[in-house]
Amino acid sequence: MKSFIKYPKYSDFPIENLPYGVFSIESDTVPKIGVAIGDLILNLNEISHLFQGPQLKKKQYVFKESSLNAFMGLGQPAWKEARETIQKLLSENEPLLRDNAQLREKAFVPQSKATMHLPAKIGDYTDFYSSIHHATNVGVMFRDKNNALMPNWKYLPVGYHGRASSVVISGTPIYRPHGQTLAIEGAPPVFGPCKLMDFELEMAFFVGTPNNLGEPISISNAHKHIFGFVIMNDWSARDIQKWEYVPLGPFTAKNLGTTISPWVVTTLALEPFICENFPQDPEPFPYLKHSDKFNFDINLQVDITPKDSNVSTTVCRSNFKYLYWTVKQQLVHHTITGCNVNPGDLMGSGTISGDASDSFGSLLELSWKGTKPISLNDGTQRKFLQDGDTVTMRAFCEGDDYNIGFGVCAGQLLPAKKLAF
Amino acid sequence: MKSFIKYPKYSDFPIENLPYGVFSIESDTVPKIGVAIGDLILNLNEISHLFQGPQLKKKQYVFKESSLNAFMGLGQPAWKEARETIQKLLSENEPLLRDNAQLREKAFVPQSKATMHLPAKIGDYTDFYSSIHHATNVGVMFRDKNNALMPNWKYLPVGYHGRASSVVISGTPIYRPHGQTLAIEGAPPVFGPCKLMDFELEMAFFVGTPNNLGEPISISNAHKHIFGFVIMNDWSARDIQKWEYVPLGPFTAKNLGTTISPWVVTTLALEPFICENFPQDPEPFPYLKHSDKFNFDINLQVDITPKDSNVSTTVCRSNFKYLYWTVKQQLVHHTITGCNVNPGDLMGSGTISGDASDSFGSLLELSWKGTKPISLNDGTQRKFLQDGDTVTMRAFCEGDDYNIGFGVCAGQLLPAKKLAF
Repeated sequence: MKSFIKYPKYSDFPIENLPYGVFSIESDTVPKIGVAIGDLILNLNEISHLFQGPQLKKKQYVFKESSLNAFMGLGQPAWKEARETIQKLLSENEPLLRDNAQLREKAFVPQSKATMHLPAKIGDYTDFYSSIHHATNVGVMFRDKNNALMPNWKYLPVGYHGRASSVVISGTPIYRPHGQTLAIEGAPPVFGPCKLMDFELEMAFFVGTPNNLGEPISISNAHKHIFGFVIMNDWSARDIQKWEYVPLGPFTAKNLGTTISPWVVTTLALEPFICENFPQDPEPFPYLKHSDKFNFDINLQVDITPKDSNVSTTVCRSNFKYLYWTVKQQLVHHTITGCNVNPGDLMGSGTISGDASDSFGSLLELSWKGTKPISLNDGTQRKFLQDGDTVTMRAFCEGDDYNIGFGVCAGQLLPAKKLAF
Repeated sequence: MKSFIKYPKYSDFPIENLPYGVFSIESDTVPKIGVAIGDLILNLNEISHLFQGPQLKKKQYVFKESSLNAFMGLGQPAWKEARETIQKLLSENEPLLRDNAQLREKAFVPQSKATMHLPAKIGDYTDFYSSIHHATNVGVMFRDKNNALMPNWKYLPVGYHGRASSVVISGTPIYRPHGQTLAIEGAPPVFGPCKLMDFELEMAFFVGTPNNLGEPISISNAHKHIFGFVIMNDWSARDIQKWEYVPLGPFTAKNLGTTISPWVVTTLALEPFICENFPQDPEPFPYLKHSDKFNFDINLQVDITPKDSNVSTTVCRSNFKYLYWTVKQQLVHHTITGCNVNPGDLMGSGTISGDASDSFGSLLELSWKGTKPISLNDGTQRKFLQDGDTVTMRAFCEGDDYNIGFGVCAGQLLPAKKLAF
């Protein structure tokens, strides 16, 4: 498949990808929906009239909105038709857009001139804990090698409700937070800037089709509710988390900011990269069981770039496929007691660690609780993040002659702000 | 203070109260903002042109919206001016509305003819755990009498992020959920309808003024962000909760539905009922410390009405003032690592139990984990909720010659739906 838009062979955004995002430009600050193609953005606002299929003909307004929620809510047949329409419009043999210089002029924006925004209004954000290697590592570090996983872990996809308001778009700086920590076991806690700031390499999916309160989503329908995926950095203040999280879970250690990549890669674009599900033992309850493959082979990578440095170090290479629970299982379990989900809801995977020590998805694991500092290419070492560090996460699927890329999820950790009180 | 609208002396909604809500009527289903007065609703949509003070003259549009978010976001000076304007318009000596029969005809709606909606679009919902009696009871039951409170409990207001999408308005039925539970300790879990359904008596406040990510709210400014209060029933599936909540907190045991009362009683209306803060030992960290009183004397009551019965039983009488942490401390702690809050965010108190055994705010505590069934007036007993039970919560402040009431927060527990899969 070829497009009349030219891009390098292994661009993140070939015509096989077509991820959705929300952008604005300097001369028009109202956010618009666009699709990434090569180094450009196709502004769907300008070509909404070209969606003439039965699903979208009367719903072209969804491409005129400033967020993807309405489009996400239309459901799979509409997503499919949109993808086919856009793919056709961009293909090298289709003259409609290719040969209309005036429309092309309006419809394409260089990514370098665009400011990206959150792709959707995130009504609710949930974070799971679905990597068995990550959960095991944390269990070994903080509990007992022989009982590393909690008894419930292999029976249900453990998860918790996160903070939607503090989800931010790639590029947003994050401030080192203040908080309470237990410096000395048994002594009273102390208050001050976090000393153990960490990243967590995650991916997250956006919910498309909603369900009603009291009507759980069945495993056979779950895929119809999953719109697409982004990369996510679940910044974590480890020392604050350790003191606060018993018994109700992580709270202020996480709500200081959660970064996502701007381009939502659709489940449809990922279909060629579906791979075997992670083996599950014991067998899941029937409500969670599915025999079809719904795991994805997505390479993940985390780089750290120290302040004022141009030397980056890849500190982690992992893969989405290491997740024990599938996203269908996550979604179904989320709704089993009747919870309703809405278009634009975001569901994080939890830190994605492989079993190799260089595939761990957090500094907590990579430095093994700070006991094994890791070396960066600029000669410095890290146990946890230092002020000024930029954390850049990448994700991509490797096809035979193209990649499906996710772009980057990046953020710089700034020094703690002086509190005004 | 008297209104030209007549109501009984101890109406929930005298002219001293003036709570805000969102309602619709059969002939116009677009939700409107209103204020409760006696048995009527004053439709602010119809009188928005009468807000002529400096704060609201150019912002009358906030009363034309279908949710209170925009008004909540205007801040305290606007809330004050709105209250003064409405109080004046409704007072017996003010002819403007009183003597305008045509406007009165449009502006007043009987509450009996209105359908109430959620007062705000709840962007995020957080639940605290701030009653020392409740936390102690739970600690004694599930852990150790001598270490009932977790070490962090008296240092910070423990809380967790909840699910915003499943917050529903009083009157919405709740279905008994299905889920995983551990029937026999050490054996594998089982799947089926929840056996230990419970209510939790809470109150919750709505955030008004927002803050920016990375800019914690100071304790001296916290009150400016707190718009008003509702009653909340945090329905809880105890057996599901017990199995799932380690280590990341309650999840599907809570997101099956959370009921709030429809009328938001403003902090301004509650000022006459401010009372001493709960004594705190150890002294809180400076960021949490305030010497001004910000506790409220609000009587709370829970009734259970069995299915097809007209015999209700008051199973709990408690008071908001039993909370150990003030709502200012809750809000400040919530933002201390930089979390941003938005107009319409909802923050629950946690179950409000007093120290007397008939003041416990959940059946878990009232029946002491099911070991002491409580007797209802219809001759039946309860350890936990039975199908068909309606739980009705009430809250009111007792003034010398008026009450400030919150109306009711009610919901019926329906039998588990047959799963379609």
